Amino acid sequence: MTLANSHDRALRDRAAAVIPGGMFGHQSTAMLPDDYPQFFSKAKGAHLWDADGNRYLDFMCAYGPNLFGYGHPDIDAAYVSQLSQGDTLTGPTELMVALAEGWVAQVEHATWAIFCKNGTDATSMALIAARAHTKRKTIIRAKGAYHGAAPWCTPRPTGALPSDRAHQILCDYNDVASLEAAVAEAGDDLAAIFAAPFKHDAFIDQAEPDLAYATRVRELCDQTGALLIVDDVRAGLRLARDCSWARIGIQPDLSTWGKCIANGHPISMLLGSEKVRKAAASIYVTGSFWYQAAPMAAGLETLKLVQNSNYLERIQGLGERLAEGLKERATAAGFGFKVSGPVQMPLFLFEDDVDLRKGFCWSSAMLARGVYVHPWHNMFMCAAMTETDIDQALNAAEESFADLKRQAPNLAPIEKMAFLAATGLR
Amino acid sequence: MTLANSHDRALRDRAAAVIPGGMFGHQSTAMLPDDYPQFFSKAKGAHLWDADGNRYLDFMCAYGPNLFGYGHPDIDAAYVSQLSQGDTLTGPTELMVALAEGWVAQVEHATWAIFCKNGTDATSMALIAARAHTKRKTIIRAKGAYHGAAPWCTPRPTGALPSDRAHQILCDYNDVASLEAAVAEAGDDLAAIFAAPFKHDAFIDQAEPDLAYATRVRELCDQTGALLIVDDVRAGLRLARDCSWARIGIQPDLSTWGKCIANGHPISMLLGSEKVRKAAASIYVTGSFWYQAAPMAAGLETLKLVQNSNYLERIQGLGERLAEGLKERATAAGFGFKVSGPVQMPLFLFEDDVDLRKGFCWSSAMLARGVYVHPWHNMFMCAAMTETDIDQALNAAEESFADLKRQAPNLAPIEKMAFLAATGLR
Repeated sequence: MTLANSHDRALRDRAAAVIPGGMFGHQSTAMLPDDYPQFFSKAKGAHLWDADGNRYLDFMCAYGPNLFGYGHPDIDAAYVSQLSQGDTLTGPTELMVALAEGWVAQVEHATWAIFCKNGTDATSMALIAARAHTKRKTIIRAKGAYHGAAPWCTPRPTGALPSDRAHQILCDYNDVASLEAAVAEAGDDLAAIFAAPFKHDAFIDQAEPDLAYATRVRELCDQTGALLIVDDVRAGLRLARDCSWARIGIQPDLSTWGKCIANGHPISMLLGSEKVRKAAASIYVTGSFWYQAAPMAAGLETLKLVQNSNYLERIQGLGERLAEGLKERATAAGFGFKVSGPVQMPLFLFEDDVDLRKGFCWSSAMLARGVYVHPWHNMFMCAAMTETDIDQALNAAEESFADLKRQAPNLAPIEKMAFLAATGLR
Repeated sequence: MTLANSHDRALRDRAAAVIPGGMFGHQSTAMLPDDYPQFFSKAKGAHLWDADGNRYLDFMCAYGPNLFGYGHPDIDAAYVSQLSQGDTLTGPTELMVALAEGWVAQVEHATWAIFCKNGTDATSMALIAARAHTKRKTIIRAKGAYHGAAPWCTPRPTGALPSDRAHQILCDYNDVASLEAAVAEAGDDLAAIFAAPFKHDAFIDQAEPDLAYATRVRELCDQTGALLIVDDVRAGLRLARDCSWARIGIQPDLSTWGKCIANGHPISMLLGSEKVRKAAASIYVTGSFWYQAAPMAAGLETLKLVQNSNYLERIQGLGERLAEGLKERATAAGFGFKVSGPVQMPLFLFEDDVDLRKGFCWSSAMLARGVYVHPWHNMFMCAAMTETDIDQALNAAEESFADLKRQAPNLAPIEKMAFLAATGLR
């Protein structure tokens, strides 16, 4: 099975002339199998069409933003209706107040909100607010955890300076001893501890937060006066209708949100507890489009669906059906295949697959059967998926495991994944 | 004359509960006269309505984004049409390539583009790209110039660390000796010189770039191998259909754009010259919504209008009519009143007005007459304004000068502007 891709190839050639490297950022296919499309043409519900018109059941959901289905009629209607009234103006509209009220009511730890555009805006603001609040410098974050693409946190720090990344201590997620050592190292200068809601690093199995670890993070923050920041940009709303760590009984001081809070419309936010309000009011953070009214209208409509639909139970159920079905089929085909992390945000990795050659082969086979999966990044379930979609994906998986079994003895090394062995990450 | 503002007041009370300080960023009215509305309800063309339904001719144009008129039918139709096809997807659409091609053809120095969301994304990327290209650290920027709200450049660095602002040397805009001293201080570590297209600092008269200064910036970059970055986020497309410094014959290596490039839809960009392409491809920069297709559709429609309409000549003509008319009326009323900067982006300041008490009084009088002017920040003309609008604004100005004349002997000090005298800025 091969996909038509002539239009995608032509676009790549054009892009190579006017975009550095042909593409930038997390949506570049440079680190994906060669047959993955770079360009897309449309989307509806749980499905996505590439530039050549190939249709996929999309398990990436735009890397998170698609929670209720692409082109959700009510959410998009709210956007378009507000756009016709006014969007980017000389000041905000009433919608900003309503949206802040909505989120403060929804998220237990929060008494205030600041809206922005990028997830990185929210995490950077959390950093600044924590330093303003504590008048200290040092932050602790986990090795391999993604908190954005600003110089202080970007995973590929080309062009960033050591000074941009000063006053940071890295620890191991879910490792209490490592956390305690980092806190000891920070001494009396600890401003904040960043925590991903679960370990969702690329290339390796995901892991739920260990309760002892999360509890100790909270205790250490309380003992030192540092702030606990839960970075819910990626996972927010997929694990809970509250901050993701509320699920395990841990309340942060700050939480960062983005991606799906307006179902793909551009808005992110920092939520905070009362004790950080004054510091949050003292920092200067802004952006040309941060006060846009239309994404706030879409955000209010999204919040209504969060409150009034069973989307969360639905994506959990669909995720379980997918995870269980995949495990069964992988086992039947004789593969060590792990579905890790919360079922709503699963990551698929083969055992004994250092350079991901099995993962690439199987993912390409899925793609050719109209199922878009990612070979090394977590995926995202959306509420527009149906049981029938999942069952079709499982049929595709069964055939793809069979394909892989035939091809496995002759798989070529994946050159672009050679760094994984070199770094010892896998 | 007083404006109805009960709804605005009620919204401020609600906002105070759920937003730190009641509002954040550049659209906060905390530093504006007390009668300025914080919240707006709608906009069309050159006009804006506040939350209480008061209508204004809006000379702020959303702090820049409104270039062709609020709710421009063709631009918004392009957005809505693309939204119905697909917006935030698992990858970009063909529109990203077309938009990069369009801008590369439009801006003389550019051979590539990277799209982002905030103006600060673009300026921060320029910084990172320059450091990656030169493998050096130091940048020079002008005192008082605004290049965004990230820790490295925010004008109010609460919560930012000295290390965030390391490796920077400040010089005086338009002062060649100061520039040369800064370059000498940087020694062999100069990565880039940032340049605003003209001096558009807040609170003080604006100034066109001195040709000798701009020429020297270019020469010093060429001599040292540093990159020249023109930050056109605020002024881009209002001075020229190319980079603003192309107008004076100076080509930068990098230019940053935002605000009006999609007439208020959320997109910004970094444009670069060929020699920086490789470094630009080496940095990791991204955001959840950077690949949104709908703002790119709006951006393409905006670019068509840039190319095929007389918008630029129009806003220049309207700006001249406004500036000349204001000067005449101010002189007739006996006020020293300066309209500084390019007429398309004028700033209004009274002479002998250290704490802006005259400016506040006059601006409030304009507001009460349905004309929204800013007492200390540059304004923006848009192509939806008409000669009749300008003449109405001039009538309002004449009456407002008369108001000010009556009230001038008894004006109270403006407490919130006391810092201006304290810092010696005015």
